[in-house]
Amino acid sequence: MAGQIESLEKILEEHIPPEKLKDVKRLLFGKELRALNIPKAAEQLALEKDFEVQGYGFDAAEESSRSPNIVRIGGIQNKIVLPTTAPILEQRDALFKRISDIISGAALCGVNVLCLQEAWTMPFAFCTREKQPWCEFAESAEDGASTKFLQELAKQYNMVIISPILERDEERGDVLWNTAVVISNTGQVLGKSRKNHIPRTGDFNESTYYMEGNTGHKVFQTQFGKIAINICYGRHHPLNWMMYATNGADIVFNPSATVDGLSEPMWPIEARNAAIANSYFTCGINRVGSESFKSEFTSGDGKPAHHDFGHFYGSSYIAGPDGSRTPGLSRVKDGLIFAEIDLNLCRQVRDKWGFRMTQRLDLYAEEMREAIRSDWKPDLVTDSSSRNRFL
Amino acid sequence: MAGQIESLEKILEEHIPPEKLKDVKRLLFGKELRALNIPKAAEQLALEKDFEVQGYGFDAAEESSRSPNIVRIGGIQNKIVLPTTAPILEQRDALFKRISDIISGAALCGVNVLCLQEAWTMPFAFCTREKQPWCEFAESAEDGASTKFLQELAKQYNMVIISPILERDEERGDVLWNTAVVISNTGQVLGKSRKNHIPRTGDFNESTYYMEGNTGHKVFQTQFGKIAINICYGRHHPLNWMMYATNGADIVFNPSATVDGLSEPMWPIEARNAAIANSYFTCGINRVGSESFKSEFTSGDGKPAHHDFGHFYGSSYIAGPDGSRTPGLSRVKDGLIFAEIDLNLCRQVRDKWGFRMTQRLDLYAEEMREAIRSDWKPDLVTDSSSRNRFL
Repeated sequence: MAGQIESLEKILEEHIPPEKLKDVKRLLFGKELRALNIPKAAEQLALEKDFEVQGYGFDAAEESSRSPNIVRIGGIQNKIVLPTTAPILEQRDALFKRISDIISGAALCGVNVLCLQEAWTMPFAFCTREKQPWCEFAESAEDGASTKFLQELAKQYNMVIISPILERDEERGDVLWNTAVVISNTGQVLGKSRKNHIPRTGDFNESTYYMEGNTGHKVFQTQFGKIAINICYGRHHPLNWMMYATNGADIVFNPSATVDGLSEPMWPIEARNAAIANSYFTCGINRVGSESFKSEFTSGDGKPAHHDFGHFYGSSYIAGPDGSRTPGLSRVKDGLIFAEIDLNLCRQVRDKWGFRMTQRLDLYAEEMREAIRSDWKPDLVTDSSSRNRFL
Repeated sequence: MAGQIESLEKILEEHIPPEKLKDVKRLLFGKELRALNIPKAAEQLALEKDFEVQGYGFDAAEESSRSPNIVRIGGIQNKIVLPTTAPILEQRDALFKRISDIISGAALCGVNVLCLQEAWTMPFAFCTREKQPWCEFAESAEDGASTKFLQELAKQYNMVIISPILERDEERGDVLWNTAVVISNTGQVLGKSRKNHIPRTGDFNESTYYMEGNTGHKVFQTQFGKIAINICYGRHHPLNWMMYATNGADIVFNPSATVDGLSEPMWPIEARNAAIANSYFTCGINRVGSESFKSEFTSGDGKPAHHDFGHFYGSSYIAGPDGSRTPGLSRVKDGLIFAEIDLNLCRQVRDKWGFRMTQRLDLYAEEMREAIRSDWKPDLVTDSSSRNRFL
């Protein structure tokens, strides 16, 4: 963690005078959100177990024909617990224990829908390109160890839990997937949503391990709202965000694992842009810390082989349909970000801005249908009047 | 301008200590850009004529098989010059004169492709819903006064100029459009691109004046790169940004007119997200200042009738495909933002991140084709195990 700053927000709070800080925050984060009281028991637990808790309220206007539709959503970011050289089951069980503690904090904060980080049961070992032992972390979405473990907590806390894991599809040829399992607040597995877009960049050799998802853009209608999951690299794809909106999502989680030096300037932009463009809430969750592996590996950047993944910079946040967002969690510490949201805000913003109405989906369906034809030509107007270096 | 802060960037520079400012800027703006020297003559002109000039360099790696492909792109933001009660032609001619000065500054800075703000020849009178006298500002894209005026300057300065105007299509029933005219550096009208998405929000009663554009997503292959124009409200639509990329754009301008209290938290997000998602450069341009109208009008917000439009907050900026961006121009002052960009960066980022390759356009073409059918149903998984308030 040496040399890692804790967060942008802390620096701003420390140095900008209060009368200007209000303007700075408005320009950077939009409408000021209501800071929520963290229950004493949760604060105490967070202190004991060394994780951060931040909670904010996104309010909506009152309506005559609909009651407020208030739910609490949350995301957990965390480091791995044991070294990656420990036995696989020990590594996994240590993570279960750690996550169990933070989930109980989320329960104390009244969180109704909670999402964990991408591949939360394991180190992000895809940098190594080794299949063993890492594939051993893969498990059934329906009745793997992590699903069973979380089903109990979901029931206990009356909480919908989204569990992004490395999935083993035993029934279909032992295929691996990057999958989010959606566990109802009753403890039932409601379904799963697979990662639609797979990176091939730097240490993210994920296409070595699993293929593009085949579950489409399912939305899960839970007791606490219509939710969907856009896993990690899918956040770079506006079409992916959009299709969850088309299917009716009001909240889209983006469980991720990404490192500084690669994606950090994009991180505050993408999930927030998705919230704006689709008039829904988004919650971006990124793991924390650096992970070290026994075998050395290279990063496709001309640099020498090494053992350490870059720094996963946390900075998880929640963004609203009106362009507002929470501060980010720490760049270096485990944490829980949660928000009390009035789902009515989604329709209110849709009515105000009209993005869905003005979207012209028919135009784009047609243009895209053309664009995928092998005889398609781009709509280019060339300048024959100029010495054109492109001609 | 009372009570308007000048810019976020100025506050940060003033209060954050230098050793931390570097981190703050990296987190907010991405990779540090090269500040360009502003030529003395341009600085002098800017001082005399009271406008701001900022220029930055976006560099790319050297390649063996392609030479650097360096062009300078720019955008101009400005207030109207005369009161909106002055005779129409006087208002327009005063803007011609003002813009002529700033364009000559852009020429001194070596700008090759320059974009003006949306409907730059007129006040943004659409808040009034009055047709007269405002429709008198409309003119032919091919041979209207503003096109003729800019053709001379384009030739004189060897500069591609994008001129967003209120277009009168005389040949087709006097129809009005919100249109960007693309004028080649040879002075020829290369073509035009009409606004695809029209707002119906607050003071932006634009659907009262013109309809959704029918020119699709044309890209103009100029001597200085493949450019496209996403006008104003189109920036809220990721599909719009995307289709220009599909047609091959390396630079997309977003000439706009938008006010604080409405869109300001979205402004730094949308054009920048588009640059990231599409691996191209974007340039967001917003007008400046407040505009006052003779007839009072209401804003659809329950507040009393009034004469003033909100504050157009400027803040024009340029964003790169790698997530970096320039600071914004002033929120209160006319200005020129320009950048020296190596177009090779677009392909380099495409190769690094692979967004186009992993985009799955065929999947989305199919899902969208389904979604526009009248018998389509969203892909919703409902939770029958839970007391579901949505069921």
